[in-house]
Amino acid sequence: MSKGLPKRSEDYSAWYNEIVKKADLAENSPVRGCMIIKPYGFSIWEKIQAELDRMFKETGHTNAYFPIFIPKSYLSKEADHVEGFAKECAVVTHYRLKTADDGQGVVVDPEAKLEEELIIRPTSETVIWSTYKNWIQSYRDLPILVNQWANVVRWEMRTRLFLRTAEFLWQEGHTAHATKEEAVAETRQMLDIYAEFAENFMAMPVLKGIKSESERFAGAVDTYCIEALMQDGKALQAGTSHFLGQNFAKAFDVKFTSAEGKLEHVWGTSWGVSTRLMGALIMAHSDDEGLVLPPNLAPIQVVIVPIHKTDEQLAAISEKANEIQKSLRAVGISVKYDDRTTHKPGWKFAEYELKGVPVRIAIGPRDLENNTVEVARRDTKEKVTQAMDGITPYIQELMQSMQKGLYERAAKFRMEMTSEVEDYDSFKSVLEEKGGFILAHWDGTAETEEKIKEDTKATIRCIPFESSEPGKCMVTGNPSKGRVVFAKAY
Amino acid sequence: MSKGLPKRSEDYSAWYNEIVKKADLAENSPVRGCMIIKPYGFSIWEKIQAELDRMFKETGHTNAYFPIFIPKSYLSKEADHVEGFAKECAVVTHYRLKTADDGQGVVVDPEAKLEEELIIRPTSETVIWSTYKNWIQSYRDLPILVNQWANVVRWEMRTRLFLRTAEFLWQEGHTAHATKEEAVAETRQMLDIYAEFAENFMAMPVLKGIKSESERFAGAVDTYCIEALMQDGKALQAGTSHFLGQNFAKAFDVKFTSAEGKLEHVWGTSWGVSTRLMGALIMAHSDDEGLVLPPNLAPIQVVIVPIHKTDEQLAAISEKANEIQKSLRAVGISVKYDDRTTHKPGWKFAEYELKGVPVRIAIGPRDLENNTVEVARRDTKEKVTQAMDGITPYIQELMQSMQKGLYERAAKFRMEMTSEVEDYDSFKSVLEEKGGFILAHWDGTAETEEKIKEDTKATIRCIPFESSEPGKCMVTGNPSKGRVVFAKAY
Repeated sequence: MSKGLPKRSEDYSAWYNEIVKKADLAENSPVRGCMIIKPYGFSIWEKIQAELDRMFKETGHTNAYFPIFIPKSYLSKEADHVEGFAKECAVVTHYRLKTADDGQGVVVDPEAKLEEELIIRPTSETVIWSTYKNWIQSYRDLPILVNQWANVVRWEMRTRLFLRTAEFLWQEGHTAHATKEEAVAETRQMLDIYAEFAENFMAMPVLKGIKSESERFAGAVDTYCIEALMQDGKALQAGTSHFLGQNFAKAFDVKFTSAEGKLEHVWGTSWGVSTRLMGALIMAHSDDEGLVLPPNLAPIQVVIVPIHKTDEQLAAISEKANEIQKSLRAVGISVKYDDRTTHKPGWKFAEYELKGVPVRIAIGPRDLENNTVEVARRDTKEKVTQAMDGITPYIQELMQSMQKGLYERAAKFRMEMTSEVEDYDSFKSVLEEKGGFILAHWDGTAETEEKIKEDTKATIRCIPFESSEPGKCMVTGNPSKGRVVFAKAY
Repeated sequence: MSKGLPKRSEDYSAWYNEIVKKADLAENSPVRGCMIIKPYGFSIWEKIQAELDRMFKETGHTNAYFPIFIPKSYLSKEADHVEGFAKECAVVTHYRLKTADDGQGVVVDPEAKLEEELIIRPTSETVIWSTYKNWIQSYRDLPILVNQWANVVRWEMRTRLFLRTAEFLWQEGHTAHATKEEAVAETRQMLDIYAEFAENFMAMPVLKGIKSESERFAGAVDTYCIEALMQDGKALQAGTSHFLGQNFAKAFDVKFTSAEGKLEHVWGTSWGVSTRLMGALIMAHSDDEGLVLPPNLAPIQVVIVPIHKTDEQLAAISEKANEIQKSLRAVGISVKYDDRTTHKPGWKFAEYELKGVPVRIAIGPRDLENNTVEVARRDTKEKVTQAMDGITPYIQELMQSMQKGLYERAAKFRMEMTSEVEDYDSFKSVLEEKGGFILAHWDGTAETEEKIKEDTKATIRCIPFESSEPGKCMVTGNPSKGRVVFAKAY
């Protein structure tokens, strides 16, 4: 019944690629670096979207939509921003095709050249702040708490499904505030929401902290991030929240009259998570049999498979299955009854394992006699025979315990894979032999950070909000304010 | 209290533009022809999306996501399709910017020229059918019932907010079937869903029918459409559903093995509605005071405004308002309590009228004494004093009756604005003096259709599914199979 996935222990990277394809999550498109998100993959993304959207709205944010095109000159208005994004932009230069002179196919019409080229948004700070200039006059117009769900394009040279694609889907929040304190609090609030989502829905523990200057968002004063640990010991940045200071307000001349009647620049934040979360979700929990999904994000939470020889048996099983479906749906659990006769039960078992359905209920003739069902959980692969009576509360509780169990397993793994080192040699050997998060002292300079990256490929994932004891940099011996978190990363 | 909207009777077009801006629905962006959908406008679009998405899923469709980029050569594979879309395409030619030689700003890096230009999707048939080729081998893989919510770009020269913009948001369904009959049934089913949505949620009656050949989607065998009538007597195409035959399957070589073991081309459909529906919704019901929204699509269904002089009064009113809010929310009605002291009640009344909130509840000191509230409905502007007891069922019923009333008013208007004419002179005079839908005989030729359009600007909006008695073309006197629907259109 094996779907022939490579083993994680043998080729983690191939294992990831194959799960994405075989579990019908996504595939490469004819356009280099762009992906097609398949229906099953997209249904997981819809669950992610729905929960985050709810959390954003509960904290007072509303959605809006800004254009996909950014005039080239807008990008240049914030110096760091253009530096960070100019090298990976898709550029629209023309607005019409025409029939080729030889009558074969179409060519770009040279007469339809745009006066100013348009950039496909890699992120929308520039077009949004140019709009906020018109929306904001007085402190009464603040705060503005807007989010948008959109596609963005960054012309990455090396791409991987979900983890790094030229086009990806994301949400980008863009807020405007009257004071620095309020903007900093918003930046932190959104990071906390991301962390809460990662932990409670994705069952994925995350570290929260601040990026070093070299890893900061282009145009931000500070970038906060959540960092997760994958099963191969590599880190994955799962979400970022940026305190923009007054940088974009200054670049786009966005000022407001304060309650005291003074004209001041507006303070800003931006924050986003993307379809990259899908990559994190896949890598956080899955195993050699396929995807493992936390119940809170599984589009199908329970699948029911009949095991029968005769049509009469199928009819009797279906009656029971419908009863269970109805009862589970009544408490908000999504169920699929797979009564296809074109596929054997064993094939179905493997298929739903591959797709990460948390709970499988099998019903056979023996179960009919005994008024039982067989319940198999995807995470531990344990199977138990369970009485029909009380099956719904049993499944409800099982879901909760699986959600919790997945989180605890990931947290335990992260704990085991987190090391403290004192010197550079130990750093290198831990990094090579074990991987994971390494807490070490660093002198705070970009030079040392760069040297470590060149020597080892490890980067500073974050500077924890609460700093540890001061110490000495493992590389230079210079003073360090506290340990920072290193890892190799996706 | 007037927000200074132009009157519909004096300048319909200016009235529309001003409502869109003053009700905070949308505005023009710095990029020509692209719009910014503002939070309030977007919250209406979210309601439209949610209902349609539910209807699509209930009929077995699932969402997916395909790339925004289409390789230029793909567009050319279906001859009519490229003919229809090549002239209004945004074309990506480069993937990088660089600092200008003079150090000022950025320029397109000539070394980062794409080998093949990419088109921003104007619609996704080509990229989707090239994908379906890999998804479909056997009849067991069919049907494929996929939808995507996405942005698309058509480089229109004359644009208007919501009605015609260079970038717009939409959904596009793309289905693949084993038989012609099944594909035709799907095409019709989706048209019926659009009509049901327009009538039950937008409170907007629509005509259903088939497009003439010249108005057909580029690449379709048949285009079905729903056509609505706006208050100025012009028609608006509100949704289309296309039977694609085997055109795209042939262009992209998509074949399947039938149950009988024969290799056949797949049959296709596509169907879509867009943010254009927002334009239809605005124009269908609104008046000189602003937007009128049907309760089923209003983001805020009820607003409560306190009328007070003292803080004590406000506190007492707030208590009552909170009670009402709680009770209305419990039955699924969205309520806003606007207790801002920065704005006077009269200002608020005008503001919520402008924004089309269906029901306004005002509570003043007299109401406290009498245990009443004042209920004003947006559609008819009637006000009644209503006892607090039973206020929730009263509002529930009011909503339903407003939803029905708006539909009936629009249906009555359409009936009055639908004329039958026998000869071309009458046609011209009815069109000029009255407008609306005109049912007339046509000989079925593109020449006559074109002559009518040139003479009068009227187009054939649709050929009704059920044809009337045959007759003689009003222009040529040649035989006509039945009356068709003409109108000037958006």
